[in-house]
Amino acid sequence: MSDKKPSKTQVKARLPKGMRDVEAQELRALKHMLDTISEVYERYGFEPLDTPAFEYTDALGKFLPDTDRPNEGVFSFQDEDEQWVSMRYDLTAPLARYVAQNFDATPKPFRRYQTGYVYRNEKPGPGRFRQFMQFDADTVGTANPAADAEMCMLAADTLEALGIPRGGYIIKVSNRKLLDGVMDAIGISGVENATRRLTVLRAIDKLDKFGWDEVELLLGSGRKDESGDFTKGAELTPLQVRKIREYLSWESIALFRSSVQTHRQERLERDIEIAENLLGESDLIEAGLRELFDIEVLVRSAGYGHNRICIDSSVVRGLEYYTGPVFEAELTFRATDESGQAVRFGSVGGGGRYDGLVSRFRSQPVPATGFSIGVSRLYAALSHLGKIGAAKAAGPVVVLVMDKARVGDYQCMAKQLRDAGIRAEMYVGDAGMKAQMKYADKRGSPAVIIQGEDERAKGEVTIKDLLEGSRLSGEISDHAEWKEARPAQFSVSEGDLVAAVQKLLAEQAKA
Amino acid sequence: MSDKKPSKTQVKARLPKGMRDVEAQELRALKHMLDTISEVYERYGFEPLDTPAFEYTDALGKFLPDTDRPNEGVFSFQDEDEQWVSMRYDLTAPLARYVAQNFDATPKPFRRYQTGYVYRNEKPGPGRFRQFMQFDADTVGTANPAADAEMCMLAADTLEALGIPRGGYIIKVSNRKLLDGVMDAIGISGVENATRRLTVLRAIDKLDKFGWDEVELLLGSGRKDESGDFTKGAELTPLQVRKIREYLSWESIALFRSSVQTHRQERLERDIEIAENLLGESDLIEAGLRELFDIEVLVRSAGYGHNRICIDSSVVRGLEYYTGPVFEAELTFRATDESGQAVRFGSVGGGGRYDGLVSRFRSQPVPATGFSIGVSRLYAALSHLGKIGAAKAAGPVVVLVMDKARVGDYQCMAKQLRDAGIRAEMYVGDAGMKAQMKYADKRGSPAVIIQGEDERAKGEVTIKDLLEGSRLSGEISDHAEWKEARPAQFSVSEGDLVAAVQKLLAEQAKA
Repeated sequence: MSDKKPSKTQVKARLPKGMRDVEAQELRALKHMLDTISEVYERYGFEPLDTPAFEYTDALGKFLPDTDRPNEGVFSFQDEDEQWVSMRYDLTAPLARYVAQNFDATPKPFRRYQTGYVYRNEKPGPGRFRQFMQFDADTVGTANPAADAEMCMLAADTLEALGIPRGGYIIKVSNRKLLDGVMDAIGISGVENATRRLTVLRAIDKLDKFGWDEVELLLGSGRKDESGDFTKGAELTPLQVRKIREYLSWESIALFRSSVQTHRQERLERDIEIAENLLGESDLIEAGLRELFDIEVLVRSAGYGHNRICIDSSVVRGLEYYTGPVFEAELTFRATDESGQAVRFGSVGGGGRYDGLVSRFRSQPVPATGFSIGVSRLYAALSHLGKIGAAKAAGPVVVLVMDKARVGDYQCMAKQLRDAGIRAEMYVGDAGMKAQMKYADKRGSPAVIIQGEDERAKGEVTIKDLLEGSRLSGEISDHAEWKEARPAQFSVSEGDLVAAVQKLLAEQAKA
Repeated sequence: MSDKKPSKTQVKARLPKGMRDVEAQELRALKHMLDTISEVYERYGFEPLDTPAFEYTDALGKFLPDTDRPNEGVFSFQDEDEQWVSMRYDLTAPLARYVAQNFDATPKPFRRYQTGYVYRNEKPGPGRFRQFMQFDADTVGTANPAADAEMCMLAADTLEALGIPRGGYIIKVSNRKLLDGVMDAIGISGVENATRRLTVLRAIDKLDKFGWDEVELLLGSGRKDESGDFTKGAELTPLQVRKIREYLSWESIALFRSSVQTHRQERLERDIEIAENLLGESDLIEAGLRELFDIEVLVRSAGYGHNRICIDSSVVRGLEYYTGPVFEAELTFRATDESGQAVRFGSVGGGGRYDGLVSRFRSQPVPATGFSIGVSRLYAALSHLGKIGAAKAAGPVVVLVMDKARVGDYQCMAKQLRDAGIRAEMYVGDAGMKAQMKYADKRGSPAVIIQGEDERAKGEVTIKDLLEGSRLSGEISDHAEWKEARPAQFSVSEGDLVAAVQKLLAEQAKA
């Protein structure tokens, strides 16, 4: 490292690849969004937790989909004891470490929520960053499908709390056990097929993005993308591929059809029979269907219909660690971009049951389930929907510096305004009057305060209404009336400054 | 990396050295604290910004005090292009990169605030972590001392907003130019003495912590600490050391005495004369005194007295990049720990002017000044002061699962409560009634909801008041009266569940 000292010549100001800065307007809107999500999660009884940005590499484990890159998808380095540490690639692996480490002190089931940045050493692209934010809820210490059902309800409630109308989203649920059962049935079980099963999983996970024809290539011999890069396939036979396709369109199984069903218990037993006829007897498939059934009963009794939470066999989730129910939150509303093209937002979150993650650290099994929101993606969708943007803060009132020898007086005025709760600053640059006015404009100031020699002599200050000014430059029908009601600039005695500004801001807010 | 795969045997759940988890109660209090600070900063006209956790190493530069360790105080690694990246060690260096990169788009002066974790590859110790939070305000693009004065006022206002009483803190101000002038005067200017000057700087920065005798060793031949580690000294002669000591107790200079002064301009000119008599003529010292004088005039005109903001030559700040005024926010109230020992919280923040940081990237100078709060340290102090802790959230109402076949009904009750804005959950574990009650206790639940077969048959639910229960186990004088007014458990019809719980929670809040 010490030979890498920056040279004394000029350094180029640039961000590392895949990184971005977040500026004021987005940050304010983001804070509002995160506060809203937190409120919903708190109401469900989840408790906040914060874990550090990096962990020992072995404690995080390796569960990332993108393993075909150097550094294997995570950012890692060695500490002074030559132990490998890695930046967290999600919030679930650190949670597993936390629970294992504080096992006796945590109530079980343990419900926690957490928001924070995660880091992936992956190829950056449009809207695809190496640092991005997730918002997770997890329930650790119970295998009860009620905990999974709750995740789906939580996801639906959260999207609605953020302003996405019912019908504009769908929470899809499936169960990894079903796909595992299918893979058993087509003969790719066993340790020797582990990599192959992962390839199948990840191929199916791309169904939504690529469509069936491309997924078929990934299940078979492989696929070349637009850039010419070749992805090796799972090398399944056409018959095996056909079975998977059949599974993905389980039309015959009632659970996977979106109409409301009665005679529940009978329906479940019939569904299990149908599945067995298709794929042979399978404990995994039976268990998977029973869990999905339990989840369905729970969410329907709580009043969540098929238009909010539905069962869909195409949901698999790309991460290796899921062991049971898996969820995906999708936005379904149609939108168009500036060029009139249809925009589909798709998945904004997902999760599932990961019963093996905590038990990596412990001798006994510790079942767990969770749901994670992709905050940036959801933010982009909300912006597009117009559910963001009201968050733009009002600029500060700017006290102009007309006479440098009197900055103390100007500072006092700014302080008086602040003490009254008004966002206000004295201009602290060195430029003249014109540049100061430009600065106030750029800051979106509602008003500037001016006290030159003349005003000083009279014990007065002038207040210039900048919103009125910018409004004048637009087209207003009742212009004259407006102008009369609120002159662009007026003087008050020094002692009335705060009251006059308060009155002006109130009038602006009304207008 | 690939040879470092975690073994299949059990992994030990542990945090990397110097890292910590932050749990619910602290997180909630922290959020409240950060929101309070943000409010003050917003009122001063600062805008939020967020920059990523790591940056190119050359863009961050190296300005850390602790350079005598491997990896030089920062966590660094190489990206796939073999460029070095480093985790941010403060929020100032990334701001400088941001401003340089977005120079034309930012209004000048640019005021931004930012909060986030920073990372230091330093030896961890009690209360000293490798990931900790800072809260910064900076004003970039002006050399005007008004911007520095504002930082001091901002710091004072923030501490008061957080509940630290006037008299319980002090913002100390000095100017790097004075010390630079002193070092010139004792003959350690020039490039060949750069390291030595840094050693002097860091020795003085420890005055508060170590006292003069130890600092004298660091200025001279060096110092051995309790662990036996030897720190090399600046090798100054006794005469040079004496000059520095004189500077640190500039009793004769009016600016450094804490009584209110009149005839300001005359006093400044006399001060400059006194300093010149002591150390010889020096442009640096004169400029430093003039800037301090301007700051003093500004803060006094805004009504900040010597009990809030004072000038103190011992403030130097350990970072190399400061070029002008430097500030330190200290808590001065006395507290005692559990064993009755006096606890001194000392510095909870600091900052200063760093006119060279942005210009590392640009051909023209870009003056800047800032103030940074050590959030964790301030949090610890506020806890001790009892200004934290009211933030403990109420636990959720827990709907017990008395009959597993009826989870749908229980889920419905929880949902009804949540829809009414009440924090509520259904128990999602698999344990029996007794363990469920224990769980509710552990979660701090105000009440549990019970519906067994009997209640069901009558269309009723039982509400058990847990706070009343825990109160009964304490000593209450008007016990009988209390019990009559609020029975520990009562039944209501199913339709009245929400109203009854709302009423109970309101009564609990009153009690």
